Amino acid sequence: MSYLAPLRDMRFVLHELFDVAGHCERLGNGLDRELIDGVLEEAAAFTANEIAPLNRNSDEEGCQLVDGKVSTPKGFRAAYKQYVDNGWASMTGPLDFGGQGFPQLVSFAFHEMLMGASLSFRIYSGLTEGAVLALDKHGSNELKDAYLAKMVGGQWTGTMCLTEPQAGTDLALLRTRAEPQADGSYKVTGNKIFISGGEQDLSENIVHLVLARLPDAPAGVKGISLLLVPKFIATAEGGLGARNALSCGAIEHKMGIKGASTCVMNFDGATGWLVGEANQGLACMFTMMNDARFQVGLQGLGIGEAAFQGALRYAKERLQSRGLKGAVAPDKAADPIINHPDVRRMLLTQKTLVEGCRMLAAYTARQLDLEHGADEPAARKAAARRAALLIPIVKAFFTDMGQEVASHAVQVYGGHGFIREWGMEQLMRDSRITQLYEGTNGIQALDLIRRKLLGDGGAELGALIAEFSELCDAQAGQPALAEMAHTLQARLGEWRELSAEVLARSQRDAEEIGAASVDFLQYSAYVLLAGFWLQAAATAQRALDAGSGEAAFYQAKLHSAGFYLRRVLPRASSHREAMLGGAACLMAMPEASFAF
Amino acid sequence: MSYLAPLRDMRFVLHELFDVAGHCERLGNGLDRELIDGVLEEAAAFTANEIAPLNRNSDEEGCQLVDGKVSTPKGFRAAYKQYVDNGWASMTGPLDFGGQGFPQLVSFAFHEMLMGASLSFRIYSGLTEGAVLALDKHGSNELKDAYLAKMVGGQWTGTMCLTEPQAGTDLALLRTRAEPQADGSYKVTGNKIFISGGEQDLSENIVHLVLARLPDAPAGVKGISLLLVPKFIATAEGGLGARNALSCGAIEHKMGIKGASTCVMNFDGATGWLVGEANQGLACMFTMMNDARFQVGLQGLGIGEAAFQGALRYAKERLQSRGLKGAVAPDKAADPIINHPDVRRMLLTQKTLVEGCRMLAAYTARQLDLEHGADEPAARKAAARRAALLIPIVKAFFTDMGQEVASHAVQVYGGHGFIREWGMEQLMRDSRITQLYEGTNGIQALDLIRRKLLGDGGAELGALIAEFSELCDAQAGQPALAEMAHTLQARLGEWRELSAEVLARSQRDAEEIGAASVDFLQYSAYVLLAGFWLQAAATAQRALDAGSGEAAFYQAKLHSAGFYLRRVLPRASSHREAMLGGAACLMAMPEASFAF
Repeated sequence: MSYLAPLRDMRFVLHELFDVAGHCERLGNGLDRELIDGVLEEAAAFTANEIAPLNRNSDEEGCQLVDGKVSTPKGFRAAYKQYVDNGWASMTGPLDFGGQGFPQLVSFAFHEMLMGASLSFRIYSGLTEGAVLALDKHGSNELKDAYLAKMVGGQWTGTMCLTEPQAGTDLALLRTRAEPQADGSYKVTGNKIFISGGEQDLSENIVHLVLARLPDAPAGVKGISLLLVPKFIATAEGGLGARNALSCGAIEHKMGIKGASTCVMNFDGATGWLVGEANQGLACMFTMMNDARFQVGLQGLGIGEAAFQGALRYAKERLQSRGLKGAVAPDKAADPIINHPDVRRMLLTQKTLVEGCRMLAAYTARQLDLEHGADEPAARKAAARRAALLIPIVKAFFTDMGQEVASHAVQVYGGHGFIREWGMEQLMRDSRITQLYEGTNGIQALDLIRRKLLGDGGAELGALIAEFSELCDAQAGQPALAEMAHTLQARLGEWRELSAEVLARSQRDAEEIGAASVDFLQYSAYVLLAGFWLQAAATAQRALDAGSGEAAFYQAKLHSAGFYLRRVLPRASSHREAMLGGAACLMAMPEASFAF
Repeated sequence: MSYLAPLRDMRFVLHELFDVAGHCERLGNGLDRELIDGVLEEAAAFTANEIAPLNRNSDEEGCQLVDGKVSTPKGFRAAYKQYVDNGWASMTGPLDFGGQGFPQLVSFAFHEMLMGASLSFRIYSGLTEGAVLALDKHGSNELKDAYLAKMVGGQWTGTMCLTEPQAGTDLALLRTRAEPQADGSYKVTGNKIFISGGEQDLSENIVHLVLARLPDAPAGVKGISLLLVPKFIATAEGGLGARNALSCGAIEHKMGIKGASTCVMNFDGATGWLVGEANQGLACMFTMMNDARFQVGLQGLGIGEAAFQGALRYAKERLQSRGLKGAVAPDKAADPIINHPDVRRMLLTQKTLVEGCRMLAAYTARQLDLEHGADEPAARKAAARRAALLIPIVKAFFTDMGQEVASHAVQVYGGHGFIREWGMEQLMRDSRITQLYEGTNGIQALDLIRRKLLGDGGAELGALIAEFSELCDAQAGQPALAEMAHTLQARLGEWRELSAEVLARSQRDAEEIGAASVDFLQYSAYVLLAGFWLQAAATAQRALDAGSGEAAFYQAKLHSAGFYLRRVLPRASSHREAMLGGAACLMAMPEASFAF
């Protein structure tokens, strides 16, 4: 199957909705519109021509572990070399270590393309970027000098070694130990599982960031430290030194992302160095959590776009049955199935979810950029609050969305959707992991209520609602938009009430947090997307009023917004009702009664 | 992974809700409660001990095609032999040809078990039963005498050859030809795809029922005939005669059900015989459609049960994090995750959907039995109408449900859910086909509105709603049930209004049928299940009032009913709102604007 970057929609989002050029000027990074468009076009060509063609085979071939070495699927090595040589690896890396320092509002679009072209391929570099962030922020100068430039460049890759068999969501249970040595290093011993890219044949060296306990560490999450444990210890000049005492014991056989190696990693007294303070490992990890979760959200978005494209292509070509009102293409043996209302329902659900999430992704990327790069501390703090509120929604909703949209693609293909060669079922399998890793979507929902909503008594959410409410007021006088503005305004009021109710219940009874969490997150996401759809419609209407030469594009935005408001936003109602169903009906049943 | 038949719940449904013994007496088939319970217990042992253990490996090994022969996964041949030898194959077959003539209200429970233990294994025999039905009803006496006894016994299997590359949903497009011969036989030529069990190593002979066109046939669906085309032509004594000119050209590589061979079948002037009248092939197929679609619904139910069991087992064992109100199991390293509200939400969603669908399955099975076996023609007609209304709901909703419940199981397992050895992801992959074959779920939804609702102006649905409304009236005075009865009564009124609205719109504008169909089917199913949950709760309450020694079981039914009404039934609201969003927002967008 093929993948093409949705460049026109990306430009709509970047330029017309979020003024990326102005954003870059404010950040002072020297990027202008022309340069950004040029990069996106090159990125589109690279992902379509070099990466997407590898994806189908990577699923069939998978990764192989032989004598402790992992080989990636055919073509991955050459493509990764190009990825490094062409500078894609260093796009977001820090300038001090050879990175290009692109803001997220630009790089997110490239990363979405990568995810859509091949999630398996993207996983290796995505984790490296996370490791770079953690090391850049918390590593000693010695470690940074020895490791960071090669990691930023992509010649070396990084991993995150958190999970152990008994410790997944609950990192308090982890057992890997780090024993201090006389020279200031540590000997790290333990077994980690689910380590993406833990071993592979793409990079010269693999730098593992490992969570472990020091001998005197307090129990629980306050006794966890972060250590850098490289496959090859770097020489002082940043070259490859001694092979470290760590190895890949096995690779997992998975539902999807088979081109990404998922490794059991054994650390057998491997040499490592502390990153950050002792016992502050979780806090160090948390500094990269927002970015990592944002990236996983983009995985859902990228796969969703790929699935929409696949379904659309087939729906236009496949001839089957006649329209309910009679033949639409009487010259053909049957009508293209895109003419059937239920197929349109699936396609428009895909399109409006994907494009809606893309707007929210860009909005969130902008906040992440401002959090780190705004001039004023107050602006940085405000952006940090907004990003923190949105990240769990982006991670969970986008990945649920990706799975749903991939499933619609399978359905549009009928029986062919179930056949591997068409590629749609692979998208379902690949995307299913995104709802699980980097904190399950249930954990994201808990985070949204427990840390974000209860954390400030709902203040930040209230501010966000108020902003969209102003947008509604501003558009209420526009005849073409008045109905949408009215619908959204009503939902915003409902959202405000609902968050107050959730807050009140959660303060009374902690179990109400977990009982409401997933439905509250879903409710929030659907209303949030409606807000962006109104913004898109308003922007499109302005372009049409100004006599744009691209009337069809803007008209489609208005149609899409109308569809979303009428046929997708109603999902919020069920989440609201279910949430109000409360915790008692969940908690009353004794464990033994959960029987069959 | 293991599978255990949910015998206690099956007995609740069969005996306590639907009085299966009385049903059998009415049908005069000589089955009593003791015999039925005995059969179900043997079925439970057979599926748990002989079938379920084959399922995981069958996914890894799949089927192999070598030199035109297909080998099924390890253990399938021996298990199939046992299936035949022990008489499981002939359970539902006609008495005249050695079948045991079990009613659906009993056999559905066995079939659910088979689906839960291994959908791949069940597919071979399920299709044979469909072929038996069609042949028994429409075949000439000569064909029946030659083929039916062996098919009923399971020594020979059957297939349904409908789909061709260009003709899936739209059978009007099919091209396979059947040329009449002087001896009354036909030469069948064409290529069929997606033929389950088209070739395999389980049975001595494979009897294909093939849709094809005679030379003088009118175009479209009125020119399709049904032919019996055996792999080996039967001798007059019912033995194996000449090898026919047909072959398996390829097997498909699929997302799931890898133990079931899915074949490309090439008919190269193969000898066949008409089943039923010329050009009446679709009508002949339709006589078995209800049963076939009911069986596919049971696949969703069986996989749903297996997924619930898997999730439940893990949720009780897996220790991770502490309860939101503090430690629940302070003696352990962490609390079993079944204590976390969001995990309970997933488990109860699984449990109440699966058990709710089981009640609806039994109710539908009873109608299918009465349709064929009630004494009075009026009773047979009434049952036929009710079954016809329910079948598309059962097929589509149960299979969507199976997919959802399997996905919850993956989610409960966290990252482990994505790993093949745990078996949860296989359930997702296996069940995904059920939403596609035997008429996609979109086609079921169209059938519900177009044939069933518009067919009688909503009369049968109105009658069904009235019956549940009486149930609500009867329970409204029960303090423990009054709230549920009130909630359901309100939904029933809404359902009545909504069906009137859908009818009115559909008569005005045919595209409203396709625009409303899937949401209307989903809405209907959620309310229907609520009706059965009220019935279950009323039955449980009576048992508790009577001082039952199984108080925990009946209490769980009340809890489950309460959960369903509060936390699952709200989904109906969104489907209602979305449906009312109408067709215009689907059809207004020009095809070219479905771009990216």
